[in-house]
Amino acid sequence: MTYHKAKKVVIIAEKMLSEKICRIIDASGARGYTVVPAGGRGAHHKHYTSERASVVDDFATVRIEVVVNNKTTAEEIGNQVVEQCFDKYSGIVYLEDVEVLRPGKFGGK
Amino acid sequence: MTYHKAKKVVIIAEKMLSEKICRIIDASGARGYTVVPAGGRGAHHKHYTSERASVVDDFATVRIEVVVNNKTTAEEIGNQVVEQCFDKYSGIVYLEDVEVLRPGKFGGK
Amino acid sequence: MTYHKAKKVVIIAEKMLSEKICRIIDASGARGYTVVPAGGRGAHHKHYTSERASVVDDFATVRIEVVVNNKTTAEEIGNQVVEQCFDKYSGIVYLEDVEVLRPGKFGGK
Repeated sequence: MTYHKAKKVVIIAEKMLSEKICRIIDASGARGYTVVPAGGRGAHHKHYTSERASVVDDFATVRIEVVVNNKTTAEEIGNQVVEQCFDKYSGIVYLEDVEVLRPGKFGGK
Repeated sequence: MTYHKAKKVVIIAEKMLSEKICRIIDASGARGYTVVPAGGRGAHHKHYTSERASVVDDFATVRIEVVVNNKTTAEEIGNQVVEQCFDKYSGIVYLEDVEVLRPGKFGGK
Repeated sequence: MTYHKAKKVVIIAEKMLSEKICRIIDASGARGYTVVPAGGRGAHHKHYTSERASVVDDFATVRIEVVVNNKTTAEEIGNQVVEQCFDKYSGIVYLEDVEVLRPGKFGGK
């Protein structure tokens, strides 16, 4: 089987933003996304706390990843999440190069 | 310390496929893998639902990642997972370039 | 918006090492990190078990990721985690290239 270049978008955001972010992803042409519960500290997490235990055990954050078959769609998802969600709320977005089998399974404009 | 090129395989699949996928990874020569509970939507998740809450809170999916010290082993793991697991069930596989310390800790043929 | 090159460090370690690893990250100049509960098998997980169920459901491991705006800081975090945490305990570290918006949000020396 042949591997094809694709692009992954990772979004780390407050859990309350999940629905809005998922709508942006759905509208982008992407075929799906994966959500993982997360905790942490910093500009991309709600709670700045000195108690490490809660940082590690309190999952008020989500890590959403989506793979699309072209760079433009990935960048558009990132731009829209930052513009529409991270004006008032904290969060980060980053892109990564990936290689996929069966690229038709991954949407994009 | 010196960083060495290595390859990561990420598999997103229904939780019920975990055992089969882990056996493929074990047989590949990889030294280990990491499993994270996940939810989501799309061709790589079982449930297509209009209820976002369940998408975000129902973790019927797993995200398995494994790092190996060569591209061939990574591609073989990906090929076998797609051939043996994703003929009947949904799921995705992608590869990424990574850099590791102590490459001897990461198996591969 | 413009995407800028940055570096991600991923650390997979026993949960009991979380506090020590977070202190190393905080001291590096990074602006934050994300922690996800994980399970698994291998040199980077505590428990070698033949029972797959517990591998998939027992989250005694954490997957910590941190994005910084330069390679040197990323490598230093990786070096220090290996030297200070993985002498006695198992775990792995790997680096990845990423692209970020708003690079000022990601610290580094």
